[in-house]
Amino acid sequence: MVASSESKGLQDPFGDPVYKAAVIDVLGAVAYGEVSAVERLTDDAKMAPSLEDKTALLAMAAAQQAKIQPVLDRLGELGVDAYAAMEPLREGFDAFHTHTRPSDWWESLVKAYVGDGLANDFYREIAGYLDEETRKLVVTTLEDSGRADFVVDRVRAGIEADHLIGGRLALWGRRLMGEAITQTQQIAATREGLSGLIIDDHLPGLDLGTIGEMLTRITQRHVERMGKLGLEH
Amino acid sequence: MVASSESKGLQDPFGDPVYKAAVIDVLGAVAYGEVSAVERLTDDAKMAPSLEDKTALLAMAAAQQAKIQPVLDRLGELGVDAYAAMEPLREGFDAFHTHTRPSDWWESLVKAYVGDGLANDFYREIAGYLDEETRKLVVTTLEDSGRADFVVDRVRAGIEADHLIGGRLALWGRRLMGEAITQTQQIAATREGLSGLIIDDHLPGLDLGTIGEMLTRITQRHVERMGKLGLEH
Repeated sequence: MVASSESKGLQDPFGDPVYKAAVIDVLGAVAYGEVSAVERLTDDAKMAPSLEDKTALLAMAAAQQAKIQPVLDRLGELGVDAYAAMEPLREGFDAFHTHTRPSDWWESLVKAYVGDGLANDFYREIAGYLDEETRKLVVTTLEDSGRADFVVDRVRAGIEADHLIGGRLALWGRRLMGEAITQTQQIAATREGLSGLIIDDHLPGLDLGTIGEMLTRITQRHVERMGKLGLEH
Repeated sequence: MVASSESKGLQDPFGDPVYKAAVIDVLGAVAYGEVSAVERLTDDAKMAPSLEDKTALLAMAAAQQAKIQPVLDRLGELGVDAYAAMEPLREGFDAFHTHTRPSDWWESLVKAYVGDGLANDFYREIAGYLDEETRKLVVTTLEDSGRADFVVDRVRAGIEADHLIGGRLALWGRRLMGEAITQTQQIAATREGLSGLIIDDHLPGLDLGTIGEMLTRITQRHVERMGKLGLEH
């Protein structure tokens, strides 16, 4: 959090158009990420083996949905059309979902848990470098509603019943992580706001070195998450 | 509401096993109806022409989703497995959705609005004959979150732009109503609890005559709803 307090400084950070464009991109990504997560979770719920499992996944989808509106409102306050802000981020998220379409219920569960976890870690890291209001909003959208416990229970029970599932899902987790990194890099490379933020030193403390450390931390948390599911990374 | 105050009487209505079975069926229907509405609305959101429309439909789905848990909790209080209570109601709802799959965005919008309205009217009518606690719970799940206004705006604008849409959607509304009646009758006929309730006079005031009046009122409200959309019934 040292970086964030430095970046706040004395003047309004939104006076810097590069900073403002980057925040709009981050919020657009958070919002569209939630929209696409709601769609995928609800789709995946169709594969649920029981009504109880289906209802639990729909509840996870609704928890994501509830986080969309505050982000749209904030984009409005920043004077931009929230839907226009989401638009350029669609391709990356849609590609992620197209490339990681679960083939069964187990893959859906792991994707719901691992995908959500990765996204949350990533936004939390980025938020540390942003102004206080944006940071608070982003961190609030990431609060875990605790529903993910059901995924952990289900996956662990599934592996216990059939050890082959564990090997397959460990590979699946690696694929989700690889695809997430690929798409994040694609988005960062195509969005001038985001890459400009780093290259031109608009945020003190955020450079290629700290981004490397950030990725290390995100990977470490991914490994911990896989372990919680009973899966080797 | 005369009937409901009579039905409460002095003793616990749940002492009557036929009454209890019927309430479990009604709550199972409300819960599974919400589950299937969430799934269909989210599916239909894929046809949205813009991110704004998509987000609005996802918000309607989330509003439905939020109503599921209190009904599941109440079924638990009544000592039954909520998911087992939903199971026998699935077929009717799934058949309704299979027979009314929207072929485009306009049909999705009208189905979201008209289908939700019909279900709400039906449950509100039934609730009037039930004990106070069940009635309050059912009526709470029916509270309109006001998001349906967006459907009215969109459909009216669509008809204004292209009058052919109006004729097609008027037919669509009739089909939704017909299919809803067919499936409700099927459910009532196959669920002993629900038909027993009426045949054996377990609820003073509810008989075939009052059911006829109920259907008349529901139809009347459907016609009003179609009118609000700018559609002839």
